[in-house]
Amino acid sequence: MEQKLQTLRTKLKDVSNLERAAEVLAWDQQVNMPSGGVAARAEQLATLQTLAHELFTRDEVGLLLEDLAGADWPAASDEAALIKVTRREYDHARKLTPELVAQMSRTFSLGQQVWEQAKHEANFAPFQGTLEKIVDLNIQVAEAYGYETCIYDALLDLFEPGMKTAQVNTVFDELKATLVPLVQTISERVDLVDDSLLKQNYPVGAQWDFGLEVLQAIGFDLRRGRQDKSTHPFTISFSVNDVRLTTRLTENSFPSSLFSTLHEGGHGMYEQNVAVHFDGTPLMGGTSLGVHESQSRLWENVLGRSYEFWQFYYPQLQACFPAQLGQATLDNFYRAINKVEPSLVRVEADEVTYNLHIFLRFELEQELLAGRLKVADLPAAWNAKMQSYLGLTPPHDGLGVLQDIHWSGGLMGYFPTYTLGNVMSCQFYNQTLHDIPDLKAQFQRGEFGALLAWFRQHIHQHGRKFTANELIQQITGADGLDAQPYLTYIKQKFGQIYGV
Amino acid sequence: MEQKLQTLRTKLKDVSNLERAAEVLAWDQQVNMPSGGVAARAEQLATLQTLAHELFTRDEVGLLLEDLAGADWPAASDEAALIKVTRREYDHARKLTPELVAQMSRTFSLGQQVWEQAKHEANFAPFQGTLEKIVDLNIQVAEAYGYETCIYDALLDLFEPGMKTAQVNTVFDELKATLVPLVQTISERVDLVDDSLLKQNYPVGAQWDFGLEVLQAIGFDLRRGRQDKSTHPFTISFSVNDVRLTTRLTENSFPSSLFSTLHEGGHGMYEQNVAVHFDGTPLMGGTSLGVHESQSRLWENVLGRSYEFWQFYYPQLQACFPAQLGQATLDNFYRAINKVEPSLVRVEADEVTYNLHIFLRFELEQELLAGRLKVADLPAAWNAKMQSYLGLTPPHDGLGVLQDIHWSGGLMGYFPTYTLGNVMSCQFYNQTLHDIPDLKAQFQRGEFGALLAWFRQHIHQHGRKFTANELIQQITGADGLDAQPYLTYIKQKFGQIYGV
Repeated sequence: MEQKLQTLRTKLKDVSNLERAAEVLAWDQQVNMPSGGVAARAEQLATLQTLAHELFTRDEVGLLLEDLAGADWPAASDEAALIKVTRREYDHARKLTPELVAQMSRTFSLGQQVWEQAKHEANFAPFQGTLEKIVDLNIQVAEAYGYETCIYDALLDLFEPGMKTAQVNTVFDELKATLVPLVQTISERVDLVDDSLLKQNYPVGAQWDFGLEVLQAIGFDLRRGRQDKSTHPFTISFSVNDVRLTTRLTENSFPSSLFSTLHEGGHGMYEQNVAVHFDGTPLMGGTSLGVHESQSRLWENVLGRSYEFWQFYYPQLQACFPAQLGQATLDNFYRAINKVEPSLVRVEADEVTYNLHIFLRFELEQELLAGRLKVADLPAAWNAKMQSYLGLTPPHDGLGVLQDIHWSGGLMGYFPTYTLGNVMSCQFYNQTLHDIPDLKAQFQRGEFGALLAWFRQHIHQHGRKFTANELIQQITGADGLDAQPYLTYIKQKFGQIYGV
Repeated sequence: MEQKLQTLRTKLKDVSNLERAAEVLAWDQQVNMPSGGVAARAEQLATLQTLAHELFTRDEVGLLLEDLAGADWPAASDEAALIKVTRREYDHARKLTPELVAQMSRTFSLGQQVWEQAKHEANFAPFQGTLEKIVDLNIQVAEAYGYETCIYDALLDLFEPGMKTAQVNTVFDELKATLVPLVQTISERVDLVDDSLLKQNYPVGAQWDFGLEVLQAIGFDLRRGRQDKSTHPFTISFSVNDVRLTTRLTENSFPSSLFSTLHEGGHGMYEQNVAVHFDGTPLMGGTSLGVHESQSRLWENVLGRSYEFWQFYYPQLQACFPAQLGQATLDNFYRAINKVEPSLVRVEADEVTYNLHIFLRFELEQELLAGRLKVADLPAAWNAKMQSYLGLTPPHDGLGVLQDIHWSGGLMGYFPTYTLGNVMSCQFYNQTLHDIPDLKAQFQRGEFGALLAWFRQHIHQHGRKFTANELIQQITGADGLDAQPYLTYIKQKFGQIYGV
């Protein structure tokens, strides 16, 4: 059996190497590639992804998995998890034809360029045909994977294994019941917080330097990773020892780059701290996008927008930007970076309204995939929901339906994981506060090592060994997702800021 | 037959996509990769290269080539060339086992890191074992390919198809007879040229901007390529529409970055101007390294260090660096950038002594491959030849045997192509002067389009369709390599500068 396991590992390693190579090409496409490179890059990615799929779905892999499943691995062993997770991925992959995989790869790679141009022109029309193809491909994939009653389940399962749409809807309904009225209440008090100090001119070079310093301080290892610039910040990993993240820099807005760095840093530290022996297997990486997002949003928000964090960093920030911040108190600054205000763009949204952007996308995706909404009608549906949730109408599609890269890259079923991450972040954080009683005092001293070590031990090192629900259960004892810790956190923090 | 050709093209396209993906990974390794990424990158490259080799060497490719060779393609057609060149590559590739290919890929990828560290420490010892493996692998490859009497022929043929070591030795002997005494004569007059003005502080940002402007002016298309920084400048191509080059920037030396940009720009324009329908086939790219180098060294030296070029650019350069160059005349500057002086480092060498660095490497490689020189004795042999050719002894191995990246990346048989490029550049250039009578007047006006168009028509567009000897014959009527045009150029230019 050890021999067979070794044979399986060798085969998986080749698949992983092809997939990682494709990640390098995808990273390059967003960070470096000149526009002329698009067509050839799409073909290169298609070859890599088709070959990876072909190698992975060979009969011999299935036979090995069957043999190995018959052996008596200890229930919680890495070997048992490897066989289980590989089986899950294998069953998925076998349901897609090589032609479909190649078509997806090409369409999604080219889709990003069409989207980029459409967004630049702030006009949905040139992107409509591409998005129709993408929705259709996602439906084909979901049908191939199969589902019981809800087509969305088939795609959600890719990003959040084991999670059902119904479970998400239950949690989201609970969130909506509190967050939607809270946003309305705060909207009437929006003038209580002045964030104009953030909208001065902050030279991008100094923003970059400050962000990179904080990134290292929270524990991202630059010998095993790097940060670059891209239009849409993201994190990608080529091995546990080579994790890339990106940020974007805007001169007339300070926090967006730093919070983007903290956010991607959270993802990046997760990837850097997976047990190294999972590298080259399907256990490599984060267990689900929701758990991944629990990390990114914790470092970005729960930590990065906390009073304690800035008790340490604000004097340093003032020293970097004396003209901009010399006169502003820590309290001014803390309130400014936590201002709640309905706005058009998800990635710039505050902690409270952020989730409303997700509800909107999650609902639209369900409609699109169920065939109840046509792509041609999507911009109008988007705008109607924006009005309903946030009381705003985008002036053009660039600030509306075209704002996110995800759909253009073929990702549907992905958006709800952002809010799931918010929910999980507070479930986990409550436990860290319990296990590390002086955690907040550590933040005040600029010490983040204990928090990272806790995450490494309880979450990161396990890679994809457990599902999100299993992890939550192991760590908190709760029976999976629970919206209450997050709602309590939000009500306390913003209740205090807005006096509600 | 059309059908079979199409089938062949489809198979070659997959091979090419894997090879290009490997190029992206190799580029990233030198431009971006954090040190932690080394081990995983070596494995990824090994998988890509082994799979590319496996796909290419399948029996069905050989059968297709046999069938296609039997058809009646017009002699000078692209189809005939595709079949001939693919056959040549196929026969080579079939002689290597997949194990050897994987071993080469891993050893060469890791070798670069070992070399980098050894160079950094200026100590050959930690690199010796790696280089021994590399030399041994090169010998295995050469033996696998086969040769008549000279093992070097087998490797030279990879970089300079059809060229024999004996032909190179004949040309090099002719060059040595003139260049070695010329260097000695000039060495006695070295004080006639003062280049201290180049060794002031030139801010790297302004160097970068000036270089990028010139790069575009000579015709490199930044929509289909880009420039980055790396320790060892190089050019690499992911398609005709995505060509990457690198330069390096040194604050206390102006010309090295600009001339590196011109040099790599020459390579890059070659890659950008190959007929687009060769993309994805073995006809893609430059016909040989010597012809490639004829382009890079022509733009760097014959053009970039010419009086006419600087008649146009020197006022602009003075405007960029008024404190450094405001007082220096065009004549001072022209003489400074053409100063001839024996020195230790090839990439910093002037046009005349440069070739002596190549003779040294070419001779050492022949000794190593023939087993007459042990790797352990290489540093001493290097230093002895440096003394003999240039009258200098490196103070440490970092400025001696460790200075070049090539061997660490597995490249042996490559070095002579630099001097072959010098020789060919003047053979071609004489023809351009004949065909474009006012060429030098165009340079004085900052116009380079006619020169690039000439190269595109006569060389670039043909990709790898012809061998170097065939191209020389077609363009100049000469029967292959001829050292005389280059020697005439050198004697005239430097005779004028040094009054000899």
